[in-house]
Amino acid sequence: MTDFDTLDRADPLGSFRDAFDLPPGIIYLDGNSLGPLPKATRARLADVIDREWGRDLIGSWTRNGWMELPLRVGGKIGRLIGAAPDSTLAGDSTSVNLFKALATALALRPERRVILTEPGNFPTDRYIAEGLAALLGRGHRLREAEAEDLPAALDDQVAVLLLTHVDYRSGRMLDMARLTAAAHAAGALAIWDLSHSAGAVPLAIAADGADFAVGCGYKFLNGGPGAPGYLSIAPRHQDAPAPLAGWMGHADPFAFAPAYRPGAGIARAGVGTPAILGLAALEVGVDLALAADMAAVREKSLRMSGLFLQHAAARLPGFAIATPADPAVRASQVCLRHPRAAAIMQQLAARGIIGDFRPPDVLRFGITPLTLRYAELGEVLAALAEAA
Amino acid sequence: MTDFDTLDRADPLGSFRDAFDLPPGIIYLDGNSLGPLPKATRARLADVIDREWGRDLIGSWTRNGWMELPLRVGGKIGRLIGAAPDSTLAGDSTSVNLFKALATALALRPERRVILTEPGNFPTDRYIAEGLAALLGRGHRLREAEAEDLPAALDDQVAVLLLTHVDYRSGRMLDMARLTAAAHAAGALAIWDLSHSAGAVPLAIAADGADFAVGCGYKFLNGGPGAPGYLSIAPRHQDAPAPLAGWMGHADPFAFAPAYRPGAGIARAGVGTPAILGLAALEVGVDLALAADMAAVREKSLRMSGLFLQHAAARLPGFAIATPADPAVRASQVCLRHPRAAAIMQQLAARGIIGDFRPPDVLRFGITPLTLRYAELGEVLAALAEAA
Repeated sequence: MTDFDTLDRADPLGSFRDAFDLPPGIIYLDGNSLGPLPKATRARLADVIDREWGRDLIGSWTRNGWMELPLRVGGKIGRLIGAAPDSTLAGDSTSVNLFKALATALALRPERRVILTEPGNFPTDRYIAEGLAALLGRGHRLREAEAEDLPAALDDQVAVLLLTHVDYRSGRMLDMARLTAAAHAAGALAIWDLSHSAGAVPLAIAADGADFAVGCGYKFLNGGPGAPGYLSIAPRHQDAPAPLAGWMGHADPFAFAPAYRPGAGIARAGVGTPAILGLAALEVGVDLALAADMAAVREKSLRMSGLFLQHAAARLPGFAIATPADPAVRASQVCLRHPRAAAIMQQLAARGIIGDFRPPDVLRFGITPLTLRYAELGEVLAALAEAA
Repeated sequence: MTDFDTLDRADPLGSFRDAFDLPPGIIYLDGNSLGPLPKATRARLADVIDREWGRDLIGSWTRNGWMELPLRVGGKIGRLIGAAPDSTLAGDSTSVNLFKALATALALRPERRVILTEPGNFPTDRYIAEGLAALLGRGHRLREAEAEDLPAALDDQVAVLLLTHVDYRSGRMLDMARLTAAAHAAGALAIWDLSHSAGAVPLAIAADGADFAVGCGYKFLNGGPGAPGYLSIAPRHQDAPAPLAGWMGHADPFAFAPAYRPGAGIARAGVGTPAILGLAALEVGVDLALAADMAAVREKSLRMSGLFLQHAAARLPGFAIATPADPAVRASQVCLRHPRAAAIMQQLAARGIIGDFRPPDVLRFGITPLTLRYAELGEVLAALAEAA
């Protein structure tokens, strides 16, 4: 038997758990869907509410750095994902950021009409692409290929390769460097949705050549429910026109100039007034992610998911494993399939174990190395063995 | 001399001041730019943070009504602005909502290419329109006419009349019913930006025939810095395709269906995951606005601005008045011009009086009837007389 307690005692990330509030009696394996509350968020938001908003009022835009928040938080996320300096902006939802990225990318490849994606890409990514194609009315269309067929599907009609780095159902991770290189070789641009990877797996989007990246703040970044997302644009594309040209992307918003003059660099991706409460909470979560050694996070994540899969194979005969066995393509979650998945997840919930049921038959367990203990993993495995 | 204290004692809205936290020693005339902190917001956000996020975690999407928040808060804003039932959604920034409204409106008038607006329309409205025109690449262009010339500028090329109801500099209010009727008579649609009117002046956008309305949550609605905005779409236009087709506008987001199937009614205007912290804070502010009798708000606002203008005319000879004298077109702010406007505003700030300086020479004072006392108005007038 695995000695989970010994693993906890040797865990170099063990102390991070104390930085989060987790309710007693709960084993939380949904941090990949909504990350738990960092303790410091409470004090930070109280300060934003009481002092910055309540006392300093409008003056906070300058005095308390509100105007800088999208760039400051974006810059921190940029470090976490290995983006070029000053190329990431926090704000808006992931969907809106994806719209900006895709509209910009299509404008950079005006002769091409195909957006290549996977059939299993996260739905909102597909919806946004469909909606943009209809809006433009120039015959853009989605082409789909399974992951292994993507390189072959990259022809001279493909404007953009639009992929989510980690599959939200299986946890399978794509090879960003290889697929981006293939896209570039075909003359296409690559947009990566990092919603299920940032904060969970090491990323180096600049080194991997990504043209655009977007992502979400409320999963592994622990930014809170509906936290702002982010958009990263490689410096070589930052001069492209902004499709959502709002005043926060203007070179000088408070000049209130009648004509739009785009801001320099990634600032141009700003649109409306920054959501201060959401950005402040997000910054706390991102700071925690930056404080952790990403190699240690990855090592713990793979050890945990590896133990999960190993025990599942040995002790959970009724379950099919829907997560890659190969650690090179396994991100930070474990998915099992079972005909009674919904009922089993409810049984687990009754014991305080919170995971995700995804229709029709998937049980999804997020592995969040900053908060999850090995001992908890052991309890989940025992509960699964009893429930099935 | 006006007896300001007597006016305060007779003020039917006087008790609302206690619902807000305002720092001692401050007279705040910038509530039209960033509304002050409602006391109840602190407790509401603490509950969202501690109980809903911290304890109930992912379950809050259903258990604590997070999924309903955009429609619930939108519905309340809809009542405040006189929209048709179930036609208003809270979320995203005003700029993003304006993009959705304008893109939808242009699609509904495919043969027309002109967006008619005022030269003084709020900059982000113009920028978004310019950016959308460039994105579509179908020859859409902005046409400008001063307010009094708008009806004559409405010809059969105009797809959309795009106006901000209240001018952010002067406080001049347009006649929504008359201009919307003129737009319709010319075959155009009307989009109204209510950022400087909602919560400050009575609105009846459905009765006035508005096709679309957008607005901001952090001014007179007191929703906090960068609060979510809102979008209202008249029921007759709600079947139009959503230009920002995100998963929250899908008929069944959690089916994770590969193809986009638009939600019914205004739900289709949803895009990304709702910003829960921002929406919760916004709801508190909107609830306060709904609790006030809007006729009383309007009466106090006009009395305050009327007194301001009357005293300015009599006692502030160096200042030019930039706000309409006619109460029918005066919203809820007072603007004065002075060659030394910037310096004067700094002198006022040194005495704890917070207004807005708008280049080159405008001093702007927001009149927020829920929080401003007549006695404070008297102090501002005295300070202005000394400063000039």
